Amino acid sequence: MPKAAFNALVARLSLPPIPAVQSWARSYDGAHGPLIDLSQAVPGYPPHPDLLGWLADAAGSAAYAGYGAIEGDGVLRAAYATHVSELYGARLGAANVHLTAGCNQAFVAAVMAVAGPGDAVLMTNPCYFNHETTLQMMGVAPRYFECHAEAGFVPRVADVAAALDGVKALALVSPNNPTGAVYPPELLGEIFELCRERGVWLILDETYRDFIATGSGRPHGLFDVDGWEENLIQLYSFSKSFCIPGHRLGAITAGAEAVTQMAKVMDNLQICAPRAPQQAVARGLPALVEWREGNRLEIERRADAMRAAFASLPEWEMEAMGAYFAFVRHPFDGVDAASVAQTMARDLGVVTIPGSYFGTGLERHLRIAFANVDAEQIGEVAGRLRLMK
Amino acid sequence: MPKAAFNALVARLSLPPIPAVQSWARSYDGAHGPLIDLSQAVPGYPPHPDLLGWLADAAGSAAYAGYGAIEGDGVLRAAYATHVSELYGARLGAANVHLTAGCNQAFVAAVMAVAGPGDAVLMTNPCYFNHETTLQMMGVAPRYFECHAEAGFVPRVADVAAALDGVKALALVSPNNPTGAVYPPELLGEIFELCRERGVWLILDETYRDFIATGSGRPHGLFDVDGWEENLIQLYSFSKSFCIPGHRLGAITAGAEAVTQMAKVMDNLQICAPRAPQQAVARGLPALVEWREGNRLEIERRADAMRAAFASLPEWEMEAMGAYFAFVRHPFDGVDAASVAQTMARDLGVVTIPGSYFGTGLERHLRIAFANVDAEQIGEVAGRLRLMK
Ligand SMILES: Cc1ncc(COP(=O)(O)O)c(C=O)c1O
Ligand SMILES: Cc1ncc(COP(=O)(O)O)c(C=O)c1O
Repeated sequence: MPKAAFNALVARLSLPPIPAVQSWARSYDGAHGPLIDLSQAVPGYPPHPDLLGWLADAAGSAAYAGYGAIEGDGVLRAAYATHVSELYGARLGAANVHLTAGCNQAFVAAVMAVAGPGDAVLMTNPCYFNHETTLQMMGVAPRYFECHAEAGFVPRVADVAAALDGVKALALVSPNNPTGAVYPPELLGEIFELCRERGVWLILDETYRDFIATGSGRPHGLFDVDGWEENLIQLYSFSKSFCIPGHRLGAITAGAEAVTQMAKVMDNLQICAPRAPQQAVARGLPALVEWREGNRLEIERRADAMRAAFASLPEWEMEAMGAYFAFVRHPFDGVDAASVAQTMARDLGVVTIPGSYFGTGLERHLRIAFANVDAEQIGEVAGRLRLMK
Repeated sequence: MPKAAFNALVARLSLPPIPAVQSWARSYDGAHGPLIDLSQAVPGYPPHPDLLGWLADAAGSAAYAGYGAIEGDGVLRAAYATHVSELYGARLGAANVHLTAGCNQAFVAAVMAVAGPGDAVLMTNPCYFNHETTLQMMGVAPRYFECHAEAGFVPRVADVAAALDGVKALALVSPNNPTGAVYPPELLGEIFELCRERGVWLILDETYRDFIATGSGRPHGLFDVDGWEENLIQLYSFSKSFCIPGHRLGAITAGAEAVTQMAKVMDNLQICAPRAPQQAVARGLPALVEWREGNRLEIERRADAMRAAFASLPEWEMEAMGAYFAFVRHPFDGVDAASVAQTMARDLGVVTIPGSYFGTGLERHLRIAFANVDAEQIGEVAGRLRLMK
């Protein structure tokens, strides 16, 4: 009997990286103290108790047990439009918002709305691995332009300009995963202008925007641009800021026509986002502003602790840092990143992700997701790394 | 400036049908009594109060606020494997289960695991519209074989055999949406044998299996087949049986290797299914057996009321019926199905979906999702339809 085959586009994808990396940690024997998990980008503190209460209220109510609108519940679409409008000094309405079951799904919906099999989408090297594998499984060709360590992994306009022809979209992440690099508003403005000139969509994932350092001002002014709706699809996740990745909620901000196209995709993908978190976050968005600001400051303290830890490790170099992540260069010449990360996880109980999981030419790098652990634990990292030879 | 374009595969899809149909109903003036919405396949009763309590517990707990395993939380994978094993007299384990955010997403994950752009998947005509649009947006070619009114829209093996070459998968839905037809176990066995001979995957959506009429026995014996894992991907939804479509939860049963491939897809699509409903349903699956049986009997009563209503309408013909749906033939020669459905919705307050939304050659048909309304309301349908000329 002929064997039923799998889709080659999926069969050739490697296994999801997070579980792979966490499996290394399971061999750690605790010799140097408790495991320090710097692998997954999750906040290390719980959701606000009020939010948990609202989640319980909504989940326990028959009113939200039924199917909701594909684009999302009106109450959160409106609340999020207000929030984004304030944050960016823009004028957005509920019609500009499409809610999704998390930001990975938002990326799927955005890409599918603008690119099909055989099309190409431009990304950074390094990039967020799920963006790359999403394109690959859809039969969309990822293309890459280099972000350089010398520039702190912030894109150079010339590199974007040289790579932008023939792609349907440019996918950027700022603050970046894996490097932490925060792209300055002016740079984003210039890149967007390029996209507009070439008829290319900018898909901008701002999952980590609530963790930009104090005094940075608004993330960008792209919503000020006349006709932004023709070229911009902005993505966001409630997973990090509200500490609710298990509830699966994200949001897309786009022109009304793009929302209409993405709604067709979302209807197929999953009809509507889960409703209880929509209801709860609609309350939390205005109510938990101070709590989110407190978390931002706490993550800033963790970033400071990271800087201090690596300042005491002269052989290691922190090449970029921001929001949730640091991107560091390890000192082991000729040793690949996966071996270094595996040794760190198994022998020292410090779990990170090899740079090579995010792109090419990154064998000397590790991604450190420091939001997950407090400043004290971060302080311990330096001591453990000093034991490596 | 060149305009940034949408993906033609998505742009050419028509708008999601349910909102379109429901917009007709908004013009109904109430002249004949309250609106009777027979359009969306949703149960017309609330979830069990205990389930709402468990949903509230889990949603309000910090323990389930974090990311979960891609394949699903172990507790529900195990509970569902036990449930399916009992229902089919099979021996399935947690490794055979992948949880998803609903059954539409299960279909996306299943198809993507086995078919890519340029491949073809065989479906029935008529078919569930989201299955068709899912294939279309992925660049997978839908092919169709005819289900005939004379056979109650149950497939004929010869029709399947004649259409099976060159496709990667056959997608079936039993009990069927839109027709309600329940495919007999022997037929499914024969079709599965054909699939195995040709190296084709059978993707079998059993969203409505808990509403099969009394005394029908197990839905099929496909899990008895040696090596079923090589060819079968079975899909299920918790939306209907547990009345929780707003929570988004579905399940896939498949071989462990297929689960591994689908996990790669799911990681990209949305990392993991929402966790609170996974925890709650793990409790409800064993605990609410009697409640689900009571609902099944209630839906059976609604089916009886439907039969009685149409028996009193000699010009209308009920050509198929089962689980949640009846597929009826309207008496208006030369009038297309959308016009009939629109008139019924606007003028009579009876909302149904035109047969033409489910395939070709179905201008004389309407889908009636009767689970949504009680027997008394169904009784009123006949009176209203008698007013049509
Ligand atoms: C850049 C980026 N986008 C999207 C996501 C996915 O977030 P969500 O939980 O909302 O799907 C992540 C999660 O790590 C991320 O780093
Ligand atoms: C045949 C079929 N499959 C899947 C679904 C989607 O169900 P879910 O709510 O689990 O996504 C439906 C819903 O109507 C359906 O009729």
